[in-house]
Amino acid sequence: MFDPVEKLKEYIRFASVSTDSAFKEQMELTRDFAAGLVESLGLSVEIVDTKGHPIVLGRRGGDPSWPHVLIYGHYDVQPADPPELWETGPFEPIEKDGRLFGRGAADNKGPQMAHLAAVGQLLEEQPDLPLRITFILEGEEEIGSPSLRPFLQERRAELSEADLVLLSDTLSPSAEQMVVTVGLRGVIELEVRVTGPNGDLHSGLHGGAVYNPVQALTEICASLHTADNRVDIAGFYDDVAEVEDWERDELAKLGGDEEQYKTLVGVDAFHAMEGYTPFEAVRYLPTLEFNGIGGGYQGEGSKTIVPSKAFAKITCRLVGNQDPETIFDLVEKAVLDRAPQGVRVEVKRGHKGAPYLVVPPGRPNTPGDQPERLARAFTAADAAISQVFGRPPLFLREGGSIPIIADIKSTLGLDSVMIGLFLPEDNLHAPNESMDLGVLENGIQVSKRILESLAKG
Amino acid sequence: MFDPVEKLKEYIRFASVSTDSAFKEQMELTRDFAAGLVESLGLSVEIVDTKGHPIVLGRRGGDPSWPHVLIYGHYDVQPADPPELWETGPFEPIEKDGRLFGRGAADNKGPQMAHLAAVGQLLEEQPDLPLRITFILEGEEEIGSPSLRPFLQERRAELSEADLVLLSDTLSPSAEQMVVTVGLRGVIELEVRVTGPNGDLHSGLHGGAVYNPVQALTEICASLHTADNRVDIAGFYDDVAEVEDWERDELAKLGGDEEQYKTLVGVDAFHAMEGYTPFEAVRYLPTLEFNGIGGGYQGEGSKTIVPSKAFAKITCRLVGNQDPETIFDLVEKAVLDRAPQGVRVEVKRGHKGAPYLVVPPGRPNTPGDQPERLARAFTAADAAISQVFGRPPLFLREGGSIPIIADIKSTLGLDSVMIGLFLPEDNLHAPNESMDLGVLENGIQVSKRILESLAKG
Repeated sequence: MFDPVEKLKEYIRFASVSTDSAFKEQMELTRDFAAGLVESLGLSVEIVDTKGHPIVLGRRGGDPSWPHVLIYGHYDVQPADPPELWETGPFEPIEKDGRLFGRGAADNKGPQMAHLAAVGQLLEEQPDLPLRITFILEGEEEIGSPSLRPFLQERRAELSEADLVLLSDTLSPSAEQMVVTVGLRGVIELEVRVTGPNGDLHSGLHGGAVYNPVQALTEICASLHTADNRVDIAGFYDDVAEVEDWERDELAKLGGDEEQYKTLVGVDAFHAMEGYTPFEAVRYLPTLEFNGIGGGYQGEGSKTIVPSKAFAKITCRLVGNQDPETIFDLVEKAVLDRAPQGVRVEVKRGHKGAPYLVVPPGRPNTPGDQPERLARAFTAADAAISQVFGRPPLFLREGGSIPIIADIKSTLGLDSVMIGLFLPEDNLHAPNESMDLGVLENGIQVSKRILESLAKG
Repeated sequence: MFDPVEKLKEYIRFASVSTDSAFKEQMELTRDFAAGLVESLGLSVEIVDTKGHPIVLGRRGGDPSWPHVLIYGHYDVQPADPPELWETGPFEPIEKDGRLFGRGAADNKGPQMAHLAAVGQLLEEQPDLPLRITFILEGEEEIGSPSLRPFLQERRAELSEADLVLLSDTLSPSAEQMVVTVGLRGVIELEVRVTGPNGDLHSGLHGGAVYNPVQALTEICASLHTADNRVDIAGFYDDVAEVEDWERDELAKLGGDEEQYKTLVGVDAFHAMEGYTPFEAVRYLPTLEFNGIGGGYQGEGSKTIVPSKAFAKITCRLVGNQDPETIFDLVEKAVLDRAPQGVRVEVKRGHKGAPYLVVPPGRPNTPGDQPERLARAFTAADAAISQVFGRPPLFLREGGSIPIIADIKSTLGLDSVMIGLFLPEDNLHAPNESMDLGVLENGIQVSKRILESLAKG
């Protein structure tokens, strides 16, 4: 079997930035590397071409009566900018203080490696393990998985035969306290584009006569939140689900420390909606977030213009049971309704993903018809984490989005068991991303135990 | 004598962008070219070193009783971005349809060339002309003339002996209707910088808990104007001077066509402050203009972050009798007062320039002690323009800023006669800048007549 850490370093060296077409060749090399990795476990590999980046599909077949687990991961990563804030090259993995640094180390190449290594080790130890395994490694998670949806539709007959999905693309609060994620926020992406004059104008000759599109954009953007950070769009919160008591109890066990959290992110005050702690807000509430803004002159010094154009990149995080299309409509309407005369405002819709919720076995609100093998996987995860990490996991909703999890549920009817293998200090989507190598090693052991337990029934 | 058009092409080929240090060498080459040009007229040249870009000082001495005119121009230009909107290279001058295209063609190399060529032709025709001439060509007009102020102080004894300043760095409405500019707006420049978390955060993990600095920035920016485009800062308008009746009469003669103006700039509605036409607003009112905004992810696709930082570049245009320092204080205080908890807000001050007003001879409010040679220059300008362009000029305030004009007044005690030699369609500070070559040729003739008339007394 390969050394998981060395193999992970190789994986990180591929700059698999899916959102930027400049990285097309690196994406292809990464796909081939991932395919080789799955093949080296003894699985058959199919490269499934899509309209975008291909899907690496790995299969271990077997008796149809054997349990069948889908293992999901993604080989693409976020852009590495701003490059000047990285202390080492984002695609030059460096081991330091028990961590491996590099873009994608934690999201998602490292956690994915835990399952790849677990399968490898398990099949080496038990070549006849009665378990069917299907790896689905996609290359478009960071851009909303547009190709995975049609893929699931096409392969629905085969894939819906599986019992559940196992994956690690979620957060645990520390290397000691693992979390099994039972809820994810959805996401929609929009860009607001404001156009004023047909070209940049001299602000001396024309300033005061025309509507500055940056001004109009800031006025529209500023109108989208109340002072207490509530999204100020009628109907936005209408479908937000109530939080269950057992969820609040579980979150209470987390015992989040607001002062520590402030220090971690470097702010002197939080800005959560009234009545919610920051820990509740990121899990239970939807957001409307400005991911970027631009317009006019941004270079050195000054340029005395009335700019022609300005834009804002927005994403909304959604929670159960908000519908992405409904929220798209509400936000777009609000923006266009608030567009002033004198500028042209357009809203361009980007990707979307629905929110997701699953209830583990033994809770007051666990569905009566929960499949036995799914319940077994949750129970096995609980036991394995308790043994390997020395403390039982918490079953919590998470603020992040893995749009495909809701798609898998709606398309294949399968729920997901999500073992959180990255930590707050891993700097996901940010400079100096890293993965805790102790968590990686423990993650391999947990995955092995879950798979082994599944194989028994 | 040189051919003014060919010489102007040579001048434009130098990419003299003063605001961007990447163009340092081009600035030096431009300075040497300008110096050579002045020398070729038979003037002595001194390159005056400064903390920034040097000043080219050209002198034609003579009997101390001779009239003495300072001619001002600037050899620096605005940046040429966005480069993709230029139809031809910004620094590759092209003659087309009676116009010369290129960055700086109209601001200020072309209009400046009118006076250089006029002096050259006049001295060739009348080598003994009893007129002292001092050219002051600076390289920092587009960044607020920081070095010209100390230069004026240092050379105060020599330069304040002059009678007036002649220059062309202002607008006329068309090639048929020239304007002599009698007022300029001042300018102050600020940058608002907002910092939220200490790095970009994953918007799934942290969105909803922390104050998004783009959101905070848009809220601050949006608070700075009322819905009718009045700057919403207490005291901002306190020192704005009343407009004189003769000024309104003169502006009425301009007969601005709002529909034409809309078409020119490409907007379907103006956004001037209530009670002002767009033509009045750009001349009589101060502004607070967003020249640029930036923060977070601006690349292709999306990046689901809560950005760490955002900024807005702001300039205020000021009118008589607003004081730049007072307005700096008011805007800075407003921004900082409106900064919400959870983000850090800084205001960085940039350059500043005071507004300027002069009253031509024969107006009801012409100062009783107006110098005779200044009055003569205005009268000569009136006559020369009437003859050469076939229609008398209008004496109007302009919305642009030439900060040095107010500085010359306050430091040297000299007023300026400003002949507008660029036109609205010249695309100043914008892509595809050009100069009307008919205006250039007429401008040479007007300048010659003014200088000749001055020499007579």
